[in-house]
Amino acid sequence: MNPFTDLAEIETPALLIDLDVMEANLASMTAFLTMHGIAQRPNIKGHKIPALAWRQVRAGAMGITCQKLSEAEVMVDAGLPDVLIAVQVIGAAKVDRLLKLARRAKLTTVVDSLAGAEPIARAFASSGMTIDVLLEIDIGYHRCGVDGRGAPALARSLSQLPGLNLVGVMGYEGHLYDLSGKGAVEAAARESYEMLTRVANGLRNAGIEVPRVSIGASAGARAAVDVRGITEVRAGSYLFNDRAQIKMGSAEPATCAATVMATVISVPTETRAVIDAGAKALTPTMVGGMPGYGDILGHEDAVLDRLSDEHGMISVGATRNPFNVGDRVRIIPNSHTVVFNQFPEVHGVREGRVEAVMPVAARAMMG
Amino acid sequence: MNPFTDLAEIETPALLIDLDVMEANLASMTAFLTMHGIAQRPNIKGHKIPALAWRQVRAGAMGITCQKLSEAEVMVDAGLPDVLIAVQVIGAAKVDRLLKLARRAKLTTVVDSLAGAEPIARAFASSGMTIDVLLEIDIGYHRCGVDGRGAPALARSLSQLPGLNLVGVMGYEGHLYDLSGKGAVEAAARESYEMLTRVANGLRNAGIEVPRVSIGASAGARAAVDVRGITEVRAGSYLFNDRAQIKMGSAEPATCAATVMATVISVPTETRAVIDAGAKALTPTMVGGMPGYGDILGHEDAVLDRLSDEHGMISVGATRNPFNVGDRVRIIPNSHTVVFNQFPEVHGVREGRVEAVMPVAARAMMG
Repeated sequence: MNPFTDLAEIETPALLIDLDVMEANLASMTAFLTMHGIAQRPNIKGHKIPALAWRQVRAGAMGITCQKLSEAEVMVDAGLPDVLIAVQVIGAAKVDRLLKLARRAKLTTVVDSLAGAEPIARAFASSGMTIDVLLEIDIGYHRCGVDGRGAPALARSLSQLPGLNLVGVMGYEGHLYDLSGKGAVEAAARESYEMLTRVANGLRNAGIEVPRVSIGASAGARAAVDVRGITEVRAGSYLFNDRAQIKMGSAEPATCAATVMATVISVPTETRAVIDAGAKALTPTMVGGMPGYGDILGHEDAVLDRLSDEHGMISVGATRNPFNVGDRVRIIPNSHTVVFNQFPEVHGVREGRVEAVMPVAARAMMG
Repeated sequence: MNPFTDLAEIETPALLIDLDVMEANLASMTAFLTMHGIAQRPNIKGHKIPALAWRQVRAGAMGITCQKLSEAEVMVDAGLPDVLIAVQVIGAAKVDRLLKLARRAKLTTVVDSLAGAEPIARAFASSGMTIDVLLEIDIGYHRCGVDGRGAPALARSLSQLPGLNLVGVMGYEGHLYDLSGKGAVEAAARESYEMLTRVANGLRNAGIEVPRVSIGASAGARAAVDVRGITEVRAGSYLFNDRAQIKMGSAEPATCAATVMATVISVPTETRAVIDAGAKALTPTMVGGMPGYGDILGHEDAVLDRLSDEHGMISVGATRNPFNVGDRVRIIPNSHTVVFNQFPEVHGVREGRVEAVMPVAARAMMG
C-alpha cells in the first residue's frame, strides 16, 4: 500500500489509528508525569509495534514494559535498550532466553516466589551476570503477587540470591477495570498505591533498598502522582484508549485513537445490519455496564450487540435502518489490546488518508 | 522443532492437537454422513491449516468451506480445488480478488441481497465467467440471510443475472450454541433444517432449480440426516470439539482433540494459581451455564475463572492447592476457533510426543 492512500481504498476489516489523537494522548500523559517527576515505562502490550515504542521513548519514557518474554525479544531486536518484563519468567527454556536477551539490553523482570526466582538467579550467577528484579505485590487485583505480610521475608531471601538485584516492588491494579467513573477508579487506585508504598516502606525499615515502586494502569496514572513514593508508571492504554477507559472515566470517544473499520455485508431486516468484523477482529470481551462490543461512530443509537467469529450484528432499534450493503463503519472497541493482537498491521490515518502502515511486529507472541 | 520431541520440551502457552482423537472424530463424522449420502464440505475456519483441510478432503469431503476470502486464497494456494466462501463478498476490491481466485479453483459464494450480488455478477459476466452462488436463508440465528418470504423474489432476480449460477440455498444454525443438551439442540436443528428445505421446495415450485441445500453446524449434523432434502453439511467443529460442543451434547472431554498447554507461573495463595495463558491464548468467550474459560484436565474441581490478556487465574476451592510454580496444565478451551486463530502453530501430539508442527497458515486472515 502506498502512503497517502484514501481510507476508502483500504480493505476491511482494518485497524486504524488516528495519528492526531494518538499524538495528543502521548503528549498529554508525558507532560503530566514529567511535571510530577514520575518515570514512565509504558507497557507496549497494547500496540506491540516497535515504532510506537520508540515514539514513547523519544517522548520521554525511560524504557518500556513488555508482558511476554517473546514481546521483549521483538522490542530488543528493534533496538529498544531498556525493557521491563512484567510477567514471571518460568521454566528452563524461558530462563535461558532471558539470559541471552540480557546480554543485548538492560532488563528488569518480576518475581513473586522463591520457586520462580531461584532458577533465574542460578542461571545469571553461573554466567557471572545479575538481573534487576521487582518483587510483585498483590495490590488488590488478586492475580500474581505476594501480600504485604509475605513481602519482607521473601524480599530478604531474594536479596541474598546471587545473580539477582532486587531493585523495588511493583503492583498491578487490574481491579480498576471492574469499576466505573473517574471518582471510584481513582479512589481505588490511591488505595492500591498506598498499599504498595506501605510495603515498600516496610522493606526499607527492614533494611532493604527499594528505589523503584512501580504501578501499572492508565486509569490510575493521574492518582499515582497524589501518592508519595510511586516512582514509576507502566501505563500503556492511554495511547489509544477504548471503551473500557471510557467506562473508567479516563477517556472519552474523542480521545480514542484506535478504531476498527468494517463493511456492512448484509442488511437482512429494517432493524439489523451485519458487518464483516466479528470476534476475530474485535473482541468478545464485555465492558461492565456498557451494551455490546463497541461504539459505532456516528450511529450512537445502534448497538453492536452480537459477535460471531467473523460477523458483527448491529441492532438498529426503532428508527429506519440507516445502513446499506457496502457502507463502512468505524468502531471503538471494548479493549484495544486484544484487537491489536489480532491484526497483522495497523493503518496510521490523518485527515482521512493513510500516512503509515505499521506491522504489529510483536503480535501473537505466545511466550 | 524436531518431530518426536517430548511434550515437556515445548514452550508454553502451546496449542496441542491429540492426533488419535482428531483422527477418530474425522473417521466418525465421515462414516456417518457418507452412510446417509450427505455431502461434506467442512468449514476450515476452526483450524485454518491446509494440511488438515487436505486430510478432510482425502477422507471424503467433496470440498471445503471458508469464512473469509483471504482464507480461501490460502487454501487455493495449498491446492484445495473446490471451495465455498460462506460469507458475503462485498466491495470492489474483494470482488476483484474473488474473480482472480475463480480462475484457479472451483468456487461457490453466498449472497443474500441484490446489492451484494450485482457487483459480483457484473464482474464475472464481463470476464465471460460464471460463479456458483448459494442464496443464504435465515434459519433462526438472525444473522445474515433473507427469510422464507423474501427468498422466491430474490432467487428469481439472482437467476436472471448473467455471471451468476444459482445452485441452491444455505443456512447457518448458530442459535444452537445458545442451547444445552443433545435433545434441545437436535430438536432446534431439525426445525431449522425443515425451514430451509421448505424454502428450497418453494423455490422449486416457482421453477427454480435448487440442487444444493447446505447447513452448517457440527452439533446439528446428526439431525441433518433426519430431514429429507439436506444435501450438504459444512460442519467443522467436530474435528476438535471444545466446551461449547460439550454443552450442546455433541462432544465429551474424551472427544476434544485441542488443548492449550500452559505453565503455572505463580501460586500466590492456597486457593489460587496463575498460568501463562490468558485472553490472547484462550478466548474470553463464555459458554452459557459453564463456569470459567476451560476445563483443566485432571483438575475437575479447579475453575479457570478469570482471564486477563496474558494471565489465567485458577480458583482452587477448599482443597489444598495442588499447583506448584512450573507445573504444566492442559485446558480444553471454550471455543477452539478463536484459539486456533491466535496461535502461529499447533503441535500434533501422539502418546506424549510431538509428531508434527503445523503452521496455522490462514490465521488472522482479516478479509
